[in-house]
Amino acid sequence: MSTPRVILLCGGVGGAKLALGLDRSLPSGDLAIVVNTGDDFDHLGLRICPDLDTVLYTLAGVVHPEQGWGRADETFAMLDELARRGGPDWFRLGDRDLALHLQRSLRWRRGDRLTEITADLVSQFGVHSAILPMTDDIVATRLDTAEGTLDFQDYFVRRRCAPVVREIHYDGATAASMSPAFLRALSSPRLERIVIAPSNPLLSIAPILSIPGVSDQLRKTGVPIVAVAPLIGDRAVKGPTAKLMQELGMRAGVVGVYDFYAERYPALIDAMLIDRSDGHEATAIGCVVASTDTLMQTMDDRLRVAQSVLELSVKGGRP
Amino acid sequence: MSTPRVILLCGGVGGAKLALGLDRSLPSGDLAIVVNTGDDFDHLGLRICPDLDTVLYTLAGVVHPEQGWGRADETFAMLDELARRGGPDWFRLGDRDLALHLQRSLRWRRGDRLTEITADLVSQFGVHSAILPMTDDIVATRLDTAEGTLDFQDYFVRRRCAPVVREIHYDGATAASMSPAFLRALSSPRLERIVIAPSNPLLSIAPILSIPGVSDQLRKTGVPIVAVAPLIGDRAVKGPTAKLMQELGMRAGVVGVYDFYAERYPALIDAMLIDRSDGHEATAIGCVVASTDTLMQTMDDRLRVAQSVLELSVKGGRP
Repeated sequence: MSTPRVILLCGGVGGAKLALGLDRSLPSGDLAIVVNTGDDFDHLGLRICPDLDTVLYTLAGVVHPEQGWGRADETFAMLDELARRGGPDWFRLGDRDLALHLQRSLRWRRGDRLTEITADLVSQFGVHSAILPMTDDIVATRLDTAEGTLDFQDYFVRRRCAPVVREIHYDGATAASMSPAFLRALSSPRLERIVIAPSNPLLSIAPILSIPGVSDQLRKTGVPIVAVAPLIGDRAVKGPTAKLMQELGMRAGVVGVYDFYAERYPALIDAMLIDRSDGHEATAIGCVVASTDTLMQTMDDRLRVAQSVLELSVKGGRP
Repeated sequence: MSTPRVILLCGGVGGAKLALGLDRSLPSGDLAIVVNTGDDFDHLGLRICPDLDTVLYTLAGVVHPEQGWGRADETFAMLDELARRGGPDWFRLGDRDLALHLQRSLRWRRGDRLTEITADLVSQFGVHSAILPMTDDIVATRLDTAEGTLDFQDYFVRRRCAPVVREIHYDGATAASMSPAFLRALSSPRLERIVIAPSNPLLSIAPILSIPGVSDQLRKTGVPIVAVAPLIGDRAVKGPTAKLMQELGMRAGVVGVYDFYAERYPALIDAMLIDRSDGHEATAIGCVVASTDTLMQTMDDRLRVAQSVLELSVKGGRP
């Protein structure tokens, strides 16, 4: 699985919906999903990779349907027991979910690469698309907030994104390397398109792009790079995207998203897929723009957005 | 909790029954239980201490009542999930049980002493007796069998004690030290009696006695040392005691148990409590002998055996 036609850069819940749409729209083996690992952390001695797991569970059809993360039909006997004796229960570790964390953590501590571990899990779960961690090194997203510097999960889960954010760091990024599998996927002779999922630009996509060489390597492929807007109007479908953009002095909305990518990673984005209701903003966006209903509630929604992304005609795109 | 009146040397299920009887018979703080850690092992990245857990769960009143180990009202969602994807399910890790393994493993890997970790768990579970690992070092019971050398859990759980045993090793024992808490308990000015539980002499008690200095330190206390027979007739109440003794050329039965202790640890045992049905063997045992119904099925049985052990008059015992 090293010659994808489409590569998706992806975070957790929102991105995983598009990942599923693409996975179900493309022939087996045509999709490689590069996943943010900036949210990964150690908890209870386990190495936990929230975005990788969300993408894996979503593609395997075992994700919790309402939540969008964790397992369907989950139980919490371990966590209840832990909480009963004063242990930490702020991170909702389900019993089934634990099987995966134990498997991964064992190999992680033995020194296996996250890419290999993930590939084996992908195979165990019968998933056909490749799921690639952005790096095998440790990158940790941390946030300078009005309440001090917070680890990502501390901010995101424990504090529910409440603290006002002043700056975001991707600790370890400058010393990290793209995973070899990520590099190989980018040199696929069949590559036709790179898609940026409707994930949080600051918390899910920027960590991937913060690794040295990533944006250059993406450009070097010469294929169109299409971003799907994670906002409809000035509101994120899920999560703190809009709040965070405002706190960091950005314009919350699809134009703000485009400006963020264009300023920080010049000449990266060739086209953007935005929601139909944001059509009036198209002229303020400095690249090819197409629109559809981007809210992905049903499987049909996911397939429609996937089709729109794949068919978006990038006139004037790089050859 | 450093001045016990009674110290119990103990393995898992069988010994834990007497531990419970003693715990309920003695005032809070009067009992210290020194537990075999030769069965401890690493599994799925977790540090698992079967005998410590059995004693803890038993004293906390949360042990599985029929099994005698593991938790009552347990579920196995993690294990089922693991098995579904080809992971190892031969060791029955329950979901509630996992909470304890995760807590301990995290601290174990951080370098905390097993004694400290165990003391904190004992406190979390509201247990009043001290539960002391025999050592903070790693000792691993391994068995030379007709099918090669096996790790303890491999022999005991996976192979259900089927392979014929030729020799038993306590790897690491000669380099191990008694835990400081074990030493402190032995120097308790209130100490009146040391009890050897009706645990497997070869697999549960010998690992404790294999640590340099233990038998000398036990003798040095000067208090009576009373062993409770783990066999009734030539059969173990539970586990492979009789089979193992025969395979190693010992006489299976209470006399064989006494001979084992007397030959390997001269002048250690002052008295033995055997089952009433073995009363005719008393004259063949070279120490003070008392008898009662030693089968511990009910709580009353446990209290009765505990009382018998505490009241056993050791005439001619060391001053």
